[in-house]
Amino acid sequence: MRVYLDNNATTIIDPKVFAKMKPYFIQEYGNPNSLHDFGTKTHVALKKAMNQLYIGLNADDKDDIVITSCATESNNWILKSIYYDHILNCKKNHIITTKVEHPSVISTCKFLETLGVEVTYLPVNKKGIIETHVLESHITDKTALVSIMWVNNQTGMIFPIKEISQICKKANVLFHSDAVQAVGKIPINLKEIDIDFLSFSAHKFHGPKGVGGLFIKNSQALTPLLHGGEHMGGRRSGTLNVPGIIGMGEALELSIENFNSKNSNIKKLRDTLEDEILKLDDVFVVGDKNERTPNTILVSLKGVEGEAMIWDLNKNGIAASTGSACASEFLESNSVMDAIGAEKNLAHTALRLSLSHFTTKEEIDYTVKKLNSAVKRLRAISSTYSYAPNWHESKL
Amino acid sequence: MRVYLDNNATTIIDPKVFAKMKPYFIQEYGNPNSLHDFGTKTHVALKKAMNQLYIGLNADDKDDIVITSCATESNNWILKSIYYDHILNCKKNHIITTKVEHPSVISTCKFLETLGVEVTYLPVNKKGIIETHVLESHITDKTALVSIMWVNNQTGMIFPIKEISQICKKANVLFHSDAVQAVGKIPINLKEIDIDFLSFSAHKFHGPKGVGGLFIKNSQALTPLLHGGEHMGGRRSGTLNVPGIIGMGEALELSIENFNSKNSNIKKLRDTLEDEILKLDDVFVVGDKNERTPNTILVSLKGVEGEAMIWDLNKNGIAASTGSACASEFLESNSVMDAIGAEKNLAHTALRLSLSHFTTKEEIDYTVKKLNSAVKRLRAISSTYSYAPNWHESKL
Repeated sequence: MRVYLDNNATTIIDPKVFAKMKPYFIQEYGNPNSLHDFGTKTHVALKKAMNQLYIGLNADDKDDIVITSCATESNNWILKSIYYDHILNCKKNHIITTKVEHPSVISTCKFLETLGVEVTYLPVNKKGIIETHVLESHITDKTALVSIMWVNNQTGMIFPIKEISQICKKANVLFHSDAVQAVGKIPINLKEIDIDFLSFSAHKFHGPKGVGGLFIKNSQALTPLLHGGEHMGGRRSGTLNVPGIIGMGEALELSIENFNSKNSNIKKLRDTLEDEILKLDDVFVVGDKNERTPNTILVSLKGVEGEAMIWDLNKNGIAASTGSACASEFLESNSVMDAIGAEKNLAHTALRLSLSHFTTKEEIDYTVKKLNSAVKRLRAISSTYSYAPNWHESKL
Repeated sequence: MRVYLDNNATTIIDPKVFAKMKPYFIQEYGNPNSLHDFGTKTHVALKKAMNQLYIGLNADDKDDIVITSCATESNNWILKSIYYDHILNCKKNHIITTKVEHPSVISTCKFLETLGVEVTYLPVNKKGIIETHVLESHITDKTALVSIMWVNNQTGMIFPIKEISQICKKANVLFHSDAVQAVGKIPINLKEIDIDFLSFSAHKFHGPKGVGGLFIKNSQALTPLLHGGEHMGGRRSGTLNVPGIIGMGEALELSIENFNSKNSNIKKLRDTLEDEILKLDDVFVVGDKNERTPNTILVSLKGVEGEAMIWDLNKNGIAASTGSACASEFLESNSVMDAIGAEKNLAHTALRLSLSHFTTKEEIDYTVKKLNSAVKRLRAISSTYSYAPNWHESKL
């Protein structure tokens, strides 16, 4: 059995999405910026895709959604352009973010620090999210941008984005959210929540890799990250990735189709898996079930090295992660575990399981069985884990 | 009949390329940075693709080839990073480029000028290429980078890259070449020609849109444009576009397969088309046939508005361009025609025809016929063109 429980790293392309993309590789391959039919024949599908994105995010016509190559590009773009547009030669010099952002935000902020920008990395509480009063206390009249993720990639914890946006608006500070783990997973309503910039990536919601976007409230001005031809109204140059854009639009539309029922199914399976894991001794899961996206569990299994667990599961055909896929090739401690102040020896025991609506009951039952055996085996050979008397064979 | 003669704008994906990409959309969709089989199953194909790129460019093992989303990204990356690494807080402050570069180079240079960088835009001669002694005369000890295209996108003219590289090496100045119109069209040997950085894009040689690369000689250090996770050795972050990379590798390998015979076929068809066009009165083609890539013609047809010609051809199923696809939605004069000093009224009469090895003799014969009728029709209704007595019906 092959079980894919690493949907926060990337997802399968929905076959319906791929079907929509397919004609644009070999049949309608023109450059949309051309004047001839080979180019213009892509326009209807591209306009449909853009419309699907506006509907999927509930964006306003006066907002802009600009296609990028991924959320990493979107995050780099917004942070670097805030530097050019609101910090360099301006009176502001401060950006606020959190300690648990994606590396594309953290590393870009570290780079901006070398240019003289002051960056505050907000701490998170035991649940792995920020306290809004802490954010409030750090905003000054030098603050140019607040950049806080909507959903954490490792824990699935949903940040209080509405409150954060209200704090930013009140303080007259621009607000960016990396929503790469939120879009397609929970409802996004950008008419209701006042966010200036929002990043997303198609491959996180069953769309193709290599395409993402940046939402720009009220189409406000922003120095491009990619200068060049006048693609996307001059905002982001480079020949349009036609099949990618069409795939992303379709994927977003499909992801919000029957959103509630799909999510409640995912949650049911996730909760089953989580409840079974919690029957083991010496485990804890970060954050409350109901405050997370319905698909994610980040669990610490005391005495079980995360990488060893990944290998054991993998031998049984099950795909999981120790945290961010970006770092999972390296034997690093889990950054969220560190940030929430978990004991040092626990930060290496993180296991992330992330489902999708393609996950089945059979897959979860199989995973529970294999995971329990793996925990038993790995704890038995662990040099750091002492067999706890209340940890019974019967629990496997 | 549908005839695609806009291959400098973008190309059809070779069906063989698409066949190699296809399994990586829905079957092997894992994130290559994951530890499990879903991720690692992509490694063999990715390594093969990287190998195909190294062979295709004849790069050395100690060089680096970094995947980007397109040549526009590669061009932005190199220019902006030269600013960070060799200009900001350094003694150098000068970049040399040409007046006929792609907008992704020109616009990025214009942006760098706002940061205080001095940019020299070298003029071109009547053939549309630079004179190397002019380049030499502009290099100073303040020059950080020379960025000159290998092949012009509008004319197909091949620049004297070897000489340029020698001049740069002698002067100890870094050299970047935007080779987007050269890679896959003419032999590239980066062991023989000493170039520090080279940009390319898959969709120009029958690979997919949304993927390109930057070659980096001796893997020299370069500030990333996209900071983030440690993808591509920390050089370019963002989840790898697996099907895109596999497609690009395959496309480059196929493009250089039987390179000489394919190119001589393309050239034969191109020359036939060109010879037929040159039988008309009041036309000129930029640059000598043998100094161009074998697939391109940029012709000025006096009295024939380029856009009107595109429309006439398009009605007959033929795709062509007025120049760069990036600008072809706008009624602008052709920038190369301007740069070579063509009369103002001729700069609007440019027509670019660009073939590929998928172009057939039948398509060229059909195009000659339709193009001749279009010239006749459009000149007859032109307000600027006086019917020349020596322009005979018999020539159509």
